[in-house]
Amino acid sequence: MKKVAILGSTGTIGRNTLDVIRHHQKHFRVTALAAGSNIRLLEEQIREFRPEIVSLERKEDAEFIRNRFKKDSLRVTYGLDGVLEIGGNPGNDIVVSAITGINGLKPTLAAVRAGKSVALANKESMVVAGSLLRAEARKSGARIIPVDSEHSGVLQCLAGENRRNVKKVTLTASGGPFFRTSLSELRKKTVEEALAHPRWKMGKKVTVDSATLMNKGLELIEARWLFDFKPGELDVLIHPQSIVHALVEMRDGSVLAQLSPTDMKIPIQFALTYPEREDAVLPPLDLARIGALEFYPVEAKRYPLIRLATWALREGGSAAVALNAANEVAVEAFLARRIGFLAISDVVHRAVDGHEQRTVRTLDDILDVDRLMRERTSQIIQQRY
Amino acid sequence: MKKVAILGSTGTIGRNTLDVIRHHQKHFRVTALAAGSNIRLLEEQIREFRPEIVSLERKEDAEFIRNRFKKDSLRVTYGLDGVLEIGGNPGNDIVVSAITGINGLKPTLAAVRAGKSVALANKESMVVAGSLLRAEARKSGARIIPVDSEHSGVLQCLAGENRRNVKKVTLTASGGPFFRTSLSELRKKTVEEALAHPRWKMGKKVTVDSATLMNKGLELIEARWLFDFKPGELDVLIHPQSIVHALVEMRDGSVLAQLSPTDMKIPIQFALTYPEREDAVLPPLDLARIGALEFYPVEAKRYPLIRLATWALREGGSAAVALNAANEVAVEAFLARRIGFLAISDVVHRAVDGHEQRTVRTLDDILDVDRLMRERTSQIIQQRY
Repeated sequence: MKKVAILGSTGTIGRNTLDVIRHHQKHFRVTALAAGSNIRLLEEQIREFRPEIVSLERKEDAEFIRNRFKKDSLRVTYGLDGVLEIGGNPGNDIVVSAITGINGLKPTLAAVRAGKSVALANKESMVVAGSLLRAEARKSGARIIPVDSEHSGVLQCLAGENRRNVKKVTLTASGGPFFRTSLSELRKKTVEEALAHPRWKMGKKVTVDSATLMNKGLELIEARWLFDFKPGELDVLIHPQSIVHALVEMRDGSVLAQLSPTDMKIPIQFALTYPEREDAVLPPLDLARIGALEFYPVEAKRYPLIRLATWALREGGSAAVALNAANEVAVEAFLARRIGFLAISDVVHRAVDGHEQRTVRTLDDILDVDRLMRERTSQIIQQRY
Repeated sequence: MKKVAILGSTGTIGRNTLDVIRHHQKHFRVTALAAGSNIRLLEEQIREFRPEIVSLERKEDAEFIRNRFKKDSLRVTYGLDGVLEIGGNPGNDIVVSAITGINGLKPTLAAVRAGKSVALANKESMVVAGSLLRAEARKSGARIIPVDSEHSGVLQCLAGENRRNVKKVTLTASGGPFFRTSLSELRKKTVEEALAHPRWKMGKKVTVDSATLMNKGLELIEARWLFDFKPGELDVLIHPQSIVHALVEMRDGSVLAQLSPTDMKIPIQFALTYPEREDAVLPPLDLARIGALEFYPVEAKRYPLIRLATWALREGGSAAVALNAANEVAVEAFLARRIGFLAISDVVHRAVDGHEQRTVRTLDDILDVDRLMRERTSQIIQQRY
């Protein structure tokens, strides 16, 4: 029985994780839940899974929950301290890191330092602090297991292979909701249209990132750190059906691919059971019913942010931190309807253009660059839009 | 430097094997070649690869070759003794078993008994004598590595996986040249049309077997013995592009697939280098250029022989021996223009209908059933066509 802590339990990944655990109750016990402000859902989750500790973003929400479970021995905390206590608790076997954006970094680092198995859904952690997280994992013995379907696929294709025989890794991208939209129409795309992802049900931030392909750019950087690939060994292919998640080309011309139904529960379960597997919670893949799997090259004109991500991937250092910060701010502005869809890449380009490369060794270095770039990006938005 | 003996050096697999070795001369040395009657090509192969021993089918061909290499220390043999001497030579590291049909069985068995790595292209050996070959390999320590692209794909997908997590293995079939032919047109198909395979360049027997899908039926039986799968764990899917060769479904819903350009040199090289890999001798797979990978269920009406193969797969015992013998005779008759295309499955059905299941433990048991069924099938053809 593995003890599981979930950081971000009321988000899409958190809810799917609990659904997987619901199907495999004899293998997992939920010991801790950290949520944002969705107290109604957290309350339900507490009643069903009976964790020992929960954490909320704000003090008042924590007090509300504490009142609702007065008779129970539930410990209720809040804020950064609360989520760090849960992430760093040495009593967990697995920490599912599913808080979106840079906010997920500190608790992920805490979990890695505690030497846990970290099921990583918070790709931004790896993007901005990949080098640091790898070094800390080496020290503590922590195992970082990807939850992104693409990286889960890579991990599965690499199993049993000698790394020196791997020539290239390709992550697939659905192309998002605007894959077939004419470039002139892109300008008018609304928040609602950007959030209507054709294949995956995900959080808002990552859904917008899928529409711009920045999500795939971040995943390239994540793959670099997760698996220690060189930038030139990583590639992206558009695959609208989102059935093939990753392709690993070996030096002899063979390509290994991982396929599965388009449902996050599959990579989540793999991360929880790794290196073992358990029975599926979904019907099997039916390729004859799907009919055709299509593949297209990435059109640079349609997805200008992917070139920026490739630049950050090759550049290393603070480039990825800067890119991620600018993108988070721009996507927030788009979701708040302050800028249009095409402005996301304009804003990110302008913000990153002025970035001066520097070495980022510590968490403080990273958070410094992050803060500066957020200010800069907000200024650009204010001045220009 | 691995010493390689090739049984069937002038056939399609033999020529492709020598092409792979030509590209990797520092890893392989050709020590022995066994050919049929293509003395012109064998002479070229001897001059290029300088084996120590060669064997031909007939004495007069052996004498011709002996005369051509009088000054060299080449040993020239012939007939079954010659090919068995080469197959069973303990000096080889790898024996490539690429003689077509039941004729490949005895030399394959000799190689397995000698405890060699056997790169197996002769699927009929496994179909008729899978149980025997596995038992002999266990005794001698021989390793049987498939050369068929589908089984090579399965082997690659299984690497690093715990076998108890495997739920289903799917072999793909191109569907052959008549996949889109109307059923009423099938009757008129000529030898030339059956031999015009859309994807693979192969020998005549296997190309006709691809058109009837018997090839895939034989491969199901082969997979059973190669990997110790249960009949219910094996499936077939039509995939006209022949890029995905095998799919392995894990219990958690993930599917691992092996893809490669449609060229036998890739699985041949994998068998020669297994468990390592060497650089490709072909340009890499370009999925964006290929565009779409299609998958269709198998239409039982179009491919009646696949049901018969599934029956033999489940039945075990002598059923597969009988099926293989009847099919070999029927395909020969089709290639000799004595029967039409649809008659192949008619003849095989009639022949197998009268077969009485029996236990086949030894090589003699197998060859007995084979001989009886060949006689029976020939009679059916004589009486009815």
